[in-house]
Amino acid sequence: MHTSDNLVIGIDYGTDSVRAMIVDTADGREIATDVVYYPRWKAGKFCKPATNQFRQHPLDYIEGLSQSIRNALAKAPAGSAEKVRGISVDTTGSTPCAVDRAGTPLALTPGFEENPNAMFVLWKDHTAVAEAEEINTVSKSWGGEDYTKFEGGIYSSEWFWSKILHVLREDEAVRKAAFSWVEHCDWIPAVLTGTTDPLTMKRSRTAAGHKAMWHPSWGGLPPNDFLTRLDPLLDGLRERLFTETYTGDESTGTLTAEWAERLGLSTEVTVGVGAFDAHFGAVGAEIEPNTLVKVMGTSTCDMITVEMPTGGEKLVSGICGQVNGSIMPGLLGLEAGQSAFGDIYAWFHQVLMWPLHNLLGELSYLDAATRKKIVSDVGDKLIATLSDAAENLPMEETGVIALDWMNGRRTPDANQMLKGVIGGLNLGSDAPRIFRALVEATAFGARKIVDRFVEEGVAINGVIAIGGIPKKSPFIMQISADVLNMPIKVVASEQACALGSAMAAAVACGIYPQMEAAQKAMGSGFEKVYHPNPDRAARYEAIYRRYSKLADLIEHQFTP
Amino acid sequence: MHTSDNLVIGIDYGTDSVRAMIVDTADGREIATDVVYYPRWKAGKFCKPATNQFRQHPLDYIEGLSQSIRNALAKAPAGSAEKVRGISVDTTGSTPCAVDRAGTPLALTPGFEENPNAMFVLWKDHTAVAEAEEINTVSKSWGGEDYTKFEGGIYSSEWFWSKILHVLREDEAVRKAAFSWVEHCDWIPAVLTGTTDPLTMKRSRTAAGHKAMWHPSWGGLPPNDFLTRLDPLLDGLRERLFTETYTGDESTGTLTAEWAERLGLSTEVTVGVGAFDAHFGAVGAEIEPNTLVKVMGTSTCDMITVEMPTGGEKLVSGICGQVNGSIMPGLLGLEAGQSAFGDIYAWFHQVLMWPLHNLLGELSYLDAATRKKIVSDVGDKLIATLSDAAENLPMEETGVIALDWMNGRRTPDANQMLKGVIGGLNLGSDAPRIFRALVEATAFGARKIVDRFVEEGVAINGVIAIGGIPKKSPFIMQISADVLNMPIKVVASEQACALGSAMAAAVACGIYPQMEAAQKAMGSGFEKVYHPNPDRAARYEAIYRRYSKLADLIEHQFTP
Repeated sequence: MHTSDNLVIGIDYGTDSVRAMIVDTADGREIATDVVYYPRWKAGKFCKPATNQFRQHPLDYIEGLSQSIRNALAKAPAGSAEKVRGISVDTTGSTPCAVDRAGTPLALTPGFEENPNAMFVLWKDHTAVAEAEEINTVSKSWGGEDYTKFEGGIYSSEWFWSKILHVLREDEAVRKAAFSWVEHCDWIPAVLTGTTDPLTMKRSRTAAGHKAMWHPSWGGLPPNDFLTRLDPLLDGLRERLFTETYTGDESTGTLTAEWAERLGLSTEVTVGVGAFDAHFGAVGAEIEPNTLVKVMGTSTCDMITVEMPTGGEKLVSGICGQVNGSIMPGLLGLEAGQSAFGDIYAWFHQVLMWPLHNLLGELSYLDAATRKKIVSDVGDKLIATLSDAAENLPMEETGVIALDWMNGRRTPDANQMLKGVIGGLNLGSDAPRIFRALVEATAFGARKIVDRFVEEGVAINGVIAIGGIPKKSPFIMQISADVLNMPIKVVASEQACALGSAMAAAVACGIYPQMEAAQKAMGSGFEKVYHPNPDRAARYEAIYRRYSKLADLIEHQFTP
Repeated sequence: MHTSDNLVIGIDYGTDSVRAMIVDTADGREIATDVVYYPRWKAGKFCKPATNQFRQHPLDYIEGLSQSIRNALAKAPAGSAEKVRGISVDTTGSTPCAVDRAGTPLALTPGFEENPNAMFVLWKDHTAVAEAEEINTVSKSWGGEDYTKFEGGIYSSEWFWSKILHVLREDEAVRKAAFSWVEHCDWIPAVLTGTTDPLTMKRSRTAAGHKAMWHPSWGGLPPNDFLTRLDPLLDGLRERLFTETYTGDESTGTLTAEWAERLGLSTEVTVGVGAFDAHFGAVGAEIEPNTLVKVMGTSTCDMITVEMPTGGEKLVSGICGQVNGSIMPGLLGLEAGQSAFGDIYAWFHQVLMWPLHNLLGELSYLDAATRKKIVSDVGDKLIATLSDAAENLPMEETGVIALDWMNGRRTPDANQMLKGVIGGLNLGSDAPRIFRALVEATAFGARKIVDRFVEEGVAINGVIAIGGIPKKSPFIMQISADVLNMPIKVVASEQACALGSAMAAAVACGIYPQMEAAQKAMGSGFEKVYHPNPDRAARYEAIYRRYSKLADLIEHQFTP
């Protein structure tokens, strides 16, 4: 395989594994890639699912990083290592960890090796529910600025300060040893470049702005008097964190000699400032101003960029957050999302599989292996077969109608008390009709987000989709396009996040002057466009009004 | 087997078959019974399910009657035939048929043998939807009395006048040949006793009062000017129908010589006036004043009797009908019901079986016979297994909540536009939780009927259950008792309708002076009482309020 002289490595840390992808900066071609699963995490260590405690050991990250890069280099053409110019990293988030004065995660220091509170608190860890509630209460009642306002006005248990406060309260040893705190996406570039001093470590704008209540209008992080009002335990911590933040096009530095050797790369390789996976995913998806990028998986993350308004930043009501530069440097990055999308189909799948899971065992004429195979085969084909059956149904303006709140609602207007509904049922409402209604409900939920952006003056001129569902389900994508009444472009790359990370690396190391140029040269383009069918789009307008009516009733007059 | 000298035969015509049950009047013991399925009906003749046309040939009734009685007699101890003193008959209804001047169903006359319009129009035939709508419109708008008012104020496509008008409009040959019309429960006793002249045939109070708008306050059937306002085709028909009606304790006459010979009985056997299955079922269930009898099957029929008020009959709002003597002679018979009960569980069963019905066929390692057996075995056990799983769940005041309107709502306040709802769903709402919510919803629907009776001044002092569900599902019955917060007694007899018919025969032939005495002597008693659990009943009060709130919202602000 021929490559240009300038390669970069995009690193994408997911929930279960880390991917390294070597990309040619000339055209964005994937030269080689490798995935390494976290061994401690896979073994279930340091987690308590019953209490939603999910922690990851820093060694999982470090070992996975070097292994995946070395493996990818081994798969690449000879001589590729010498051509690598930059590395950038995206991670899940908010995934913070307590560090010592040197910026070392406590779990890597003596005595803390097995302590989950000394590890990274994974995005989906919900142990800090009480702390999030306190943050929300104090923010609304303390009499000063509401520091949650650029983060959607409702602070989450999944975020930075909730988790810090929870760990500080729970673990005296960690409290005494913790000098500062870092996000996963900050720490990896700092390790690679030997810049882990917490007081000078380059912090990601994305993480700080969306999760840590950082905003220029109040000089960075919230002031000490607000934090101590939350809990005196936080007194003084602000001074040991950060004021400056950096966007993903900037450089953290170059590889240390130790890491260069460990990875088989040169000490001249530049390491970019990190960001979150969804945000670099939007970069990889070739996001443009006023184009909505939807990461469609178990839930959705909806991102949009707009020019910074000349008269100052205007608050967009009811979304997840808005941060200058969180997606593309120089543009305001807006984030929204649905708290369940594919999870709703998975829920219905689970409901329909109940007879197979619970009754096959009583059929003595089937052996255990056959029973297992039946469950597995039926389960594998169920969603596709339901989709085919649902696709052939005539549209029904007065048929089954559902509300997509089985996991509450993230945006617009976060409300975790809301629950899912399936209405309009009669004795002929079969499984495909219910499934279609669930798909329509998730599309209507997406439409609510689009409508809110537009109502708040954020024009949306196009929609781009990445994630598992756009690749797997034409049925769901076509209904989404019909309901949104906009074409939806599906990104060709299977690895938009790693590709976005590679684009960021190409900018950080100076091959391209800005992200836009890197996107233009390295973008994968789109493999398919779902165009709305005008007739179905018009009929879905009526059904969307019915959804809105039901949604208003349930939210305002029935819940909880 | 020893028997007393006085036996009676209770005949129970169901939708698919007719049952003859020989009963000892001394103690109500079942001496012998036999069931004959209708051969033409079973072959699907004269029906078009797609358009809800369901017709039954009079020969199915006649042949089934003589066969079932002769078979039952053959199973009874020698000498039983000579001891038979009376026969009474219950049937489905409203199931009318066009007859000639002699009272012979047109399908038994030359040229009409294969004409479905010349046959009995079965209760569940819905071909007359348009005519029912016209009857309702005219009743409310013509400026005179609303003749539907004692039948719940909403006339059904399943009833007498809708069906007559539909057939008269549709079939010119039948229109010309039809002299009058009879109900199935009127015609059988008339045939047995040779009293089929339509002008003098003894007509059932139950059928006339609940289905034909017959009421003493307007002198019987609605007047000719109302009927001709509906359609001039009805002009003059009233004079060829009836003014008098008879209760189930009265005699129609004695067996004709021909029928006595055909059945192997004496010409001295008395034949009672007929009634509907549910109403004789309530008699067989030992209904007492202010005791609710619930026939719980695919739907429910809820019946109650009260003393006739001294100040005249008061209209009970929103129920199905109220007719003096329709259940027990001398008492006002009130009827209500849920348009879907077991049908809702059957619907959920069908939804859950979808993967098995639609995906097993793709598993090439299973042969066709095994696939069929898996579907059948899982299907057979599904409701019981779901019930067991649901029974072990903790109660949830904020869990899944459903509305039982999958087939509209019959009472209180009939509304066929209403549809079913399942709300309160989260990603952990599994099949047992949904099933329990459906069971609770049907119990809440039953509670709404009880509440309405009580609000309207009809006290309910006890609840008795008959039908398939009380015998099969302790889970459903216990929730029903908890939600109603009243004990529910389950009738011991497996054949409450045939038993009630036998009680009526025992009165009609003079063995007992009134129904109450026959009930006391012949009643089967109760096999089980479901007592409400006080703690669960109290908690269900809260969940019932939640159901009521959701129901009000959906009915008044969302439907259709």
